[in-house]
Amino acid sequence: MSDWEKSAGKILEMDEAWRQKARLRLREQTRPEGSLGVLEGLLERLAAIQKKTVLSVKQKQILIFAADHGVTEEGVSLYPKQVTQAMVLNFLNGGATINALARAAGAEVKVVDMGVDADFEKDPRLIHAKVRRGTRNMTREPAMTAEELDQTLETGWNLALQAHQQGGELLGLGEMGIGNTTSASAVTSALLNQPAETVTGRGTGLNDALLRHKIEVIRFAHSVHQRSLTTSLEILRCLGGYEISAMTGAILGAAFSGLPVVIDGWIVSTAALAAVRINPKVLDYLFFAHQSGEQGHALLLETLEAKPLLNLSMRLGEASGAALAMGMIEAAVCVYNETATFSEAGVAKRER
Amino acid sequence: MSDWEKSAGKILEMDEAWRQKARLRLREQTRPEGSLGVLEGLLERLAAIQKKTVLSVKQKQILIFAADHGVTEEGVSLYPKQVTQAMVLNFLNGGATINALARAAGAEVKVVDMGVDADFEKDPRLIHAKVRRGTRNMTREPAMTAEELDQTLETGWNLALQAHQQGGELLGLGEMGIGNTTSASAVTSALLNQPAETVTGRGTGLNDALLRHKIEVIRFAHSVHQRSLTTSLEILRCLGGYEISAMTGAILGAAFSGLPVVIDGWIVSTAALAAVRINPKVLDYLFFAHQSGEQGHALLLETLEAKPLLNLSMRLGEASGAALAMGMIEAAVCVYNETATFSEAGVAKRER
Repeated sequence: MSDWEKSAGKILEMDEAWRQKARLRLREQTRPEGSLGVLEGLLERLAAIQKKTVLSVKQKQILIFAADHGVTEEGVSLYPKQVTQAMVLNFLNGGATINALARAAGAEVKVVDMGVDADFEKDPRLIHAKVRRGTRNMTREPAMTAEELDQTLETGWNLALQAHQQGGELLGLGEMGIGNTTSASAVTSALLNQPAETVTGRGTGLNDALLRHKIEVIRFAHSVHQRSLTTSLEILRCLGGYEISAMTGAILGAAFSGLPVVIDGWIVSTAALAAVRINPKVLDYLFFAHQSGEQGHALLLETLEAKPLLNLSMRLGEASGAALAMGMIEAAVCVYNETATFSEAGVAKRER
Repeated sequence: MSDWEKSAGKILEMDEAWRQKARLRLREQTRPEGSLGVLEGLLERLAAIQKKTVLSVKQKQILIFAADHGVTEEGVSLYPKQVTQAMVLNFLNGGATINALARAAGAEVKVVDMGVDADFEKDPRLIHAKVRRGTRNMTREPAMTAEELDQTLETGWNLALQAHQQGGELLGLGEMGIGNTTSASAVTSALLNQPAETVTGRGTGLNDALLRHKIEVIRFAHSVHQRSLTTSLEILRCLGGYEISAMTGAILGAAFSGLPVVIDGWIVSTAALAAVRINPKVLDYLFFAHQSGEQGHALLLETLEAKPLLNLSMRLGEASGAALAMGMIEAAVCVYNETATFSEAGVAKRER
């Protein structure tokens, strides 16, 4: 049994006493009760995770998990799979959208090569954890072996523990992998027991005909693996991607460490759904950044009763929504730490 | 004729050439087309306003317009009107929610006393522009005189021009005034020709009975001034507040100067609606920060076809939503300025 599996059951419940303390503090601050809207619940959860009077999310780490997908052989993406490699290099050179957003948020970006179909040179921002040069084509065989699945979960788990040990206070997760909206849709569809067409979207911009094809590919893969799709792990193994299951491991590991996690968009939410199925307690540690423009995301979020912070019709991935949300979470933390109370400011409370 | 009135008709249309240039640039950057969602339209508009290749919103100014309201005599708020004064002092001492959010966003906060029922000492963060110690009770007489209305519009107009002259690149507007959700609801109801109950909400937290009373107060005020409510200016004069009409002036002045404005929540949106009715061209210069929890805001935004950046059920005012949105706009500007193009990064564009 791997480390992750031995410990994933030991994730702690939220600390109710700290949550209550945070609620009282918010009520004492010079604002009408409840006027910060969803930011109040967010701060209560953060306080219950950090168990501190002064909260801090200064140390922000973003991990982008990258991998290729065998299913791209079926023509499910507008972009050639070489784009995965090229975008990883773009991340390392600091030229991608996420680099700009991470600079704006004051977050450090690292890229984890879980299975890109290319060799990379040594780079301080790149973590080598390649399982294989891309998953297998899920329409012909399981995307990965049981050993590979375990390896990805363990890698993600360890990286989250490491981020926490290095002083990380907020972990943002993102991904890059041409073809991975197909994998994510296949996995979510199986996990939620919903037809493929309900949870399959246009990815990077498919037209109607290509979207229909993508749905057929997923339906076919479901049919091929029908008998195996009985547990979350088996669903990940047959239909997942190396970056997706690694993020599931990272989410479990972060929750185990008490490290709050910001979930990016559609793909990362799929990894989160799998993690919640493995241990529902992780949900308290998750902050959903945004509702993406990808069809199916709304349903997934609803199922988890998760209210994302942003709804900007973004559909980029690479932790872009997570980085934006991290900035907002830090602003909310400033409010929590710095706002005067009614008595400090000499402001009258409500009359009735 | 006042300066503002002479110039308000001269607001420029968006620069289509610059908007087009921005659209092309976004398409060249290493992202699937449209994947930044609503941030793309935002950046196009910002580029068309700033007419620069490298955008900048570093110099962020927040103006909080404060005033008291005669209608508080009718028992429409949970808080005594002394809270307006106390909160102004809280802003000046840096202890309010907006101070924390402005620090997080790197924005400077100034408070404009348009008509608080109190005297304030000199303070570098306070702009003295008091018209009177609170408006008149709109259920008995017009909230202000024609001269007072003109004075507030001129003050707001001049402050926006000044912010622009001082190098301001993004102006955030907020307000403080016990009773001002009643005034804003009365004004919006008249401007949109909608019944009071459609656009009147719970403000700082009214219960059902008090909400019904607030609606009756507004209906009565509408009935008292029925014959006068024929133009936007007359609606502002009879039902408005000094801080509301000053913000209408500031919005017009900012658009005239080519200074983009971030609109906070319900009250500031009311001021924006009045400004748009005076000159519809201002709309291009406005960035709506968030959809507040206040009933009626959604309808107002819909009428203006405005898509707010955030939807966090906040209902605090004091520019709190604007400050959060300013941080996001700055992050989007980083993306615009810093993301590599497909050719720079050697990333393949879509295949088909």
